[in-house]
Amino acid sequence: MIADDVTLDSIRDAGYRIAPYVHRTPIMGSSQIGGWLDCVIEFKCENLQKVGAFKARGAHNAVFQLESSEARRGVVTHSSGNHAAALALAARNRKIPAYVVMPDNAPVVKKEAVAQYGAQITYCEPTLAAREKTMQRVQSETGAHVVHPYEDAHVISGQGTVGLEIVEQSAVDPPDTVIVPVGGGGLLAGVAVAIKSLLPDCEVIGAEPLGADDAYRSFHSGKLQPQLAPNTIADGLLASLGKPNFELIREHADDIVTVSEESIATAMQWIWSRTKLVAEPSAAVPLAAVISDASRFRGKRLTLVLTGGNVDFDRLPFASSS
Amino acid sequence: MIADDVTLDSIRDAGYRIAPYVHRTPIMGSSQIGGWLDCVIEFKCENLQKVGAFKARGAHNAVFQLESSEARRGVVTHSSGNHAAALALAARNRKIPAYVVMPDNAPVVKKEAVAQYGAQITYCEPTLAAREKTMQRVQSETGAHVVHPYEDAHVISGQGTVGLEIVEQSAVDPPDTVIVPVGGGGLLAGVAVAIKSLLPDCEVIGAEPLGADDAYRSFHSGKLQPQLAPNTIADGLLASLGKPNFELIREHADDIVTVSEESIATAMQWIWSRTKLVAEPSAAVPLAAVISDASRFRGKRLTLVLTGGNVDFDRLPFASSS
Repeated sequence: MIADDVTLDSIRDAGYRIAPYVHRTPIMGSSQIGGWLDCVIEFKCENLQKVGAFKARGAHNAVFQLESSEARRGVVTHSSGNHAAALALAARNRKIPAYVVMPDNAPVVKKEAVAQYGAQITYCEPTLAAREKTMQRVQSETGAHVVHPYEDAHVISGQGTVGLEIVEQSAVDPPDTVIVPVGGGGLLAGVAVAIKSLLPDCEVIGAEPLGADDAYRSFHSGKLQPQLAPNTIADGLLASLGKPNFELIREHADDIVTVSEESIATAMQWIWSRTKLVAEPSAAVPLAAVISDASRFRGKRLTLVLTGGNVDFDRLPFASSS
Repeated sequence: MIADDVTLDSIRDAGYRIAPYVHRTPIMGSSQIGGWLDCVIEFKCENLQKVGAFKARGAHNAVFQLESSEARRGVVTHSSGNHAAALALAARNRKIPAYVVMPDNAPVVKKEAVAQYGAQITYCEPTLAAREKTMQRVQSETGAHVVHPYEDAHVISGQGTVGLEIVEQSAVDPPDTVIVPVGGGGLLAGVAVAIKSLLPDCEVIGAEPLGADDAYRSFHSGKLQPQLAPNTIADGLLASLGKPNFELIREHADDIVTVSEESIATAMQWIWSRTKLVAEPSAAVPLAAVISDASRFRGKRLTLVLTGGNVDFDRLPFASSS
């Protein structure tokens, strides 16, 4: 059972395993945004992580826990972007091959990153069925080990190190609430396990675009719901919530909330203009959740996971202000 | 004589005076950009400075060195942006009035910042003559102390603290070359004095857009040349080189180079996409200089001053890549 294998211990193990290869990213506050929203806002800056996203953590944990005999044949995955780049880098660091199946409509910047890290890319149609089928074919041809972007205990434990670091870095003044974007749910599941193990009173909330709200529907109905036709600028959050992820989130997270596309664009512009950090749309979803329901968070200390900074600069969602 | 008043001592005094009000900004490397250009690239991140630009330094130094009797009547300036916001913040920190004359075509984000810091804004036509005339009127009405954006010893000394910090923060491995954008020349003058006093072998270079190349022409002809019709996306570098600034630059800087608009846009996109830092076009000019003449800098340790991060998001110069 994947869910049973994700524990505070597995996350601590991941932390030691990946430390040589990933950054301990800084936490940066924004007194200006906090002032506007009448709360304390801090960002865990995973946009400054290797490959520009938290996915470097789970990928390195999954790749470096393999036995040598297994690792030798390489690793394979399907991903619309950041996980693919992360797996490519992790494989390069372990000096093994990486095979990546990508939808042909993935952002240019993400395709380039994957190619640059030396992975062998196979393109397919942008449907989950095409991605899985293509990956099975590549896997059977190569014998590579499949590293799923989020339905994988080592990946979830690796992402959970974000939660560990938040606790360690905020030891003097721990957050009341941690908010994390939800796509497949690997990050939220891992962070919820880590935070709730160490700071049981800290609230852990998942934030999701309205246009890809399967985690919201699943969490509140108590039954895993598929994401049929996701539609959002937060291109990192299109995936359907994983089954083990759902189990972990149901047990450890406190809530899942949804946000509008407009609030995501506003949050992204606030982050860029106030913190001078480049955040991808998915990474702005937690701040969008605070903007959308400011009274809920008034007076609280919030840590928002700024999950990544990989942006196609010719597809920015900013409204014209001139 | 303004130029005679700018010394290592005046810059050190400025460092102590402004320390309570401004950030000691981090220096961040980019191994990826350095790898592409075959040199070591580090950015002095003044985009993370108060008001999002190095101008906070000079403005605070100028405001806090005033006698109380003089300060009471407030301060006045004309500026297209960052200096205005910086002066407004410095005046607010000293609890005195700030009067700002701005060209009506200044970027929206800069107008908003100035208003937000509580300055009283007077708009004028976007010519140097209109700006100076309007400022004289406001000055005579209020009795405020004029803080010129760059022809001012306290402003130049304040900007020079960027150079002091580069030396202190790079003590283990000092740069071979420091590159600084040039507009009015306050930053380059101050940084050149600081760096050359402490690291005489470190090269200090000014970088300027071809479309506003008066400092280049002045430096290489040995005679101050006016900037008649500047035309560049680097809106922070439209000003004409100041006279005392020219004297200091001629004495202390090693070279001034020019860059194309295209190289500025490329440099800006590299900074945004690789470092995940928001840099305004002016701030990308030093990297544009390295991109434009990579062989000159091969194998060197470069510190580039990333001067600011105040960007109008609906006027981005990125070329479409799709």
